[in-house]
Amino acid sequence: MARYCFGIDVGGTTIKCGLFRTDGEVLDKWEIRTRTEEDGRYILPDVAETILAKITEKNLDKTDVVGVGIGVPGPVNEAGEVPEAVNLHWGYVNVVKELGDLTGLTVKAGNDANVAALGELWQGGGTGYQDMIMVTLGTGVGGGIILGGKIVAGAHGAGGEIGHAHVDDTMEEACNCGNHGCLEQFASATGIANLAKKLLESSGTPSVMRGHKNISAKTVFDAVKEGDALAIQVAEQFGEYLGKALAVFSVVVDPQVIVIGGGVSNAGPILLDYVVGPFRRNTFPPCRDTEFALAKLGNDAGIYGAAKMVL
Amino acid sequence: MARYCFGIDVGGTTIKCGLFRTDGEVLDKWEIRTRTEEDGRYILPDVAETILAKITEKNLDKTDVVGVGIGVPGPVNEAGEVPEAVNLHWGYVNVVKELGDLTGLTVKAGNDANVAALGELWQGGGTGYQDMIMVTLGTGVGGGIILGGKIVAGAHGAGGEIGHAHVDDTMEEACNCGNHGCLEQFASATGIANLAKKLLESSGTPSVMRGHKNISAKTVFDAVKEGDALAIQVAEQFGEYLGKALAVFSVVVDPQVIVIGGGVSNAGPILLDYVVGPFRRNTFPPCRDTEFALAKLGNDAGIYGAAKMVL
Repeated sequence: MARYCFGIDVGGTTIKCGLFRTDGEVLDKWEIRTRTEEDGRYILPDVAETILAKITEKNLDKTDVVGVGIGVPGPVNEAGEVPEAVNLHWGYVNVVKELGDLTGLTVKAGNDANVAALGELWQGGGTGYQDMIMVTLGTGVGGGIILGGKIVAGAHGAGGEIGHAHVDDTMEEACNCGNHGCLEQFASATGIANLAKKLLESSGTPSVMRGHKNISAKTVFDAVKEGDALAIQVAEQFGEYLGKALAVFSVVVDPQVIVIGGGVSNAGPILLDYVVGPFRRNTFPPCRDTEFALAKLGNDAGIYGAAKMVL
Repeated sequence: MARYCFGIDVGGTTIKCGLFRTDGEVLDKWEIRTRTEEDGRYILPDVAETILAKITEKNLDKTDVVGVGIGVPGPVNEAGEVPEAVNLHWGYVNVVKELGDLTGLTVKAGNDANVAALGELWQGGGTGYQDMIMVTLGTGVGGGIILGGKIVAGAHGAGGEIGHAHVDDTMEEACNCGNHGCLEQFASATGIANLAKKLLESSGTPSVMRGHKNISAKTVFDAVKEGDALAIQVAEQFGEYLGKALAVFSVVVDPQVIVIGGGVSNAGPILLDYVVGPFRRNTFPPCRDTEFALAKLGNDAGIYGAAKMVL
C-alpha cells in the first residue's frame, strides 16, 4: 500500500518540496532554485529530478508513492494545464502530463493560492472545516475557495481571485490586472502602505510612522500596537475594505470559516480586530457568526496543500 | 427500474408540483394551495397526499418512483432540515424525514432559489454548463450558485443569497434583512422602481414614466424600449449595480455562465445590454468572456430543479 506523497510549490525564485506520509506527517522539506531561463523549460525536469533523487535517498519504491501534487503561480484548469504563468516565463504547459511522464507518478496540479488554501484547511487555520474562504495578504491579495474539502478552480482558473474584486469606484491608479479599484489595491501589503502614505500626506497629525523612509504594512501594524492614532486610522480603512469584501464573498459561498494569511497576517490577532467588525456589520445576518482564523502554515501551506491534492 | 420522480416547489400561497420521467420530460404539472394556518402543519401532509394521489391516478407503483425533490422558501441544511421558513409560518421542520415518512419515498430538500437555479442549469438558461451563478430579479433578489452541477448550500444555508451583497455605503433605507445597501435594494423589481422614482423627483427631464401612478420595473423597461432618456438612465444605474456585483461574485467562484431570471427578466435581452457592459469592465480580465443568458423556465424552474435533486 502506498504510504507517501510529494507536495511541490513552484515559486518565481524557489521551488519548495515536501515528502509526506499519507497520514499527513511531513518527513522532509527542502528547496531548489527555480530556473526560469529558456522559457522555464528546466522547471519540471528539475522537479522530477529532485523527486526521483529523494525516492532513491529514502530507499522508497515508486509503488510506495501515491503521487505528486504541485502548485504553480498561474491559472490551472481541471486537466492540469497552465495556459500561461508569467513568473515562470511559461507559455502553455501541460503540467500533469509532462511531470507525470518525467516521474512515472500520478500528478495533480493547481493554482498556488488555491493549493495553499487547501493546505490551511488540511493542517492549518482551517482544520476541522470543509468550506473555507482563504485570503492571502502579501505583495498582492490572493485567495482560495474550498467547498466540501475541494478547491473551486473556476471556469477560467480564476476561482478565489478575490484580490481582484472591485471594491472602489474612485481609485485612479490601475491595479496590476489593469482594472481600477481592486481589493488588492487597498488590502495588500502594498495597498496598506499606500493608504498610510496618503493619510500621512493629507493629515497634520503626529505619528510614529513619519520617521520611516519606507513605510510598510509592518510599520503600520507595529504603530497600531503602540496606539498610534494615524496608524489606527489606516488599519480601520484597511479593515473596512477587507471586511466588507469578505461580507460580499460570504453571501456567495457562505463558508464555515474565513482564514487570513500572507505576510500581513504576521501582525497577529490584532489584524482580525479590524476586519471582523466591518464583516459582521455588512454580511447577511445568518452569516454573522462565520468563524475567522489566522493561517498557521506560513510559507509551507503550498507544499501541504499540494500533497493533500493527491490524497 | 425506477422511471419517475416528483418535483415540488413550495411557495407562500401555492405549491407547484411536477411529475417527471427520469430522462427529464415533464409528464404532468399541477398546483395545490399552501395552507399556512396552524404553523403550516398541513403543508407537508398535503404534499404527501397529492403525490400519493398522483401515483394512484397514473397507475404507478412506488418502486417506479426514484424520489421526491422539494424546494422551500427558507434555509435548508445538508440533512434537509429547515430551522425556520417565515412565509410558511414554519419553525423548525425536518422536511426530508417528515415527507419521507409520509410518502415512503426518498426525499431531498433545498432552498427554493437554489433549487430553481438547478432547474435552469438542467433544462433552462444554463443547459450545457456545470458552473453557474443564477440571479433572480423579483420582488427581492434571489440567487443560486451551482458548481460541478451541485447546489452550493452554504454553512448557514445562505449560499447564493446574493441579493444581500453589500454594494452601497450611502443607502439610508434598510433592506428587509436589516442591513443597508444590499444589492436587492437596487436591482430587484422594487429597487428598480425606487431608482426610477428618485430620478423622476430629482430631475426635470420629460419622461413617459411621469404618466404612471404605480411605476414598476416593467414601466421602466417598457419606457427604455421607447427610447425614454430618463428610463435609460435608470436602466444604466441598475446595470451598474448588478453588473459590478456579478463581477465581484465571479472572482469568487468563476462560473461558466451567469443566468438572469425572475419577473424583471421578462424585459428580455435588452436587460442584458445594461448588465453585461459593467460586468466586463469590472471583472478580472480572464473572466470577461463569461457567458450570460436569460432564464427560460419561468415559474417552473423550481419543480424542474426539485426533480433534478433526486436524479
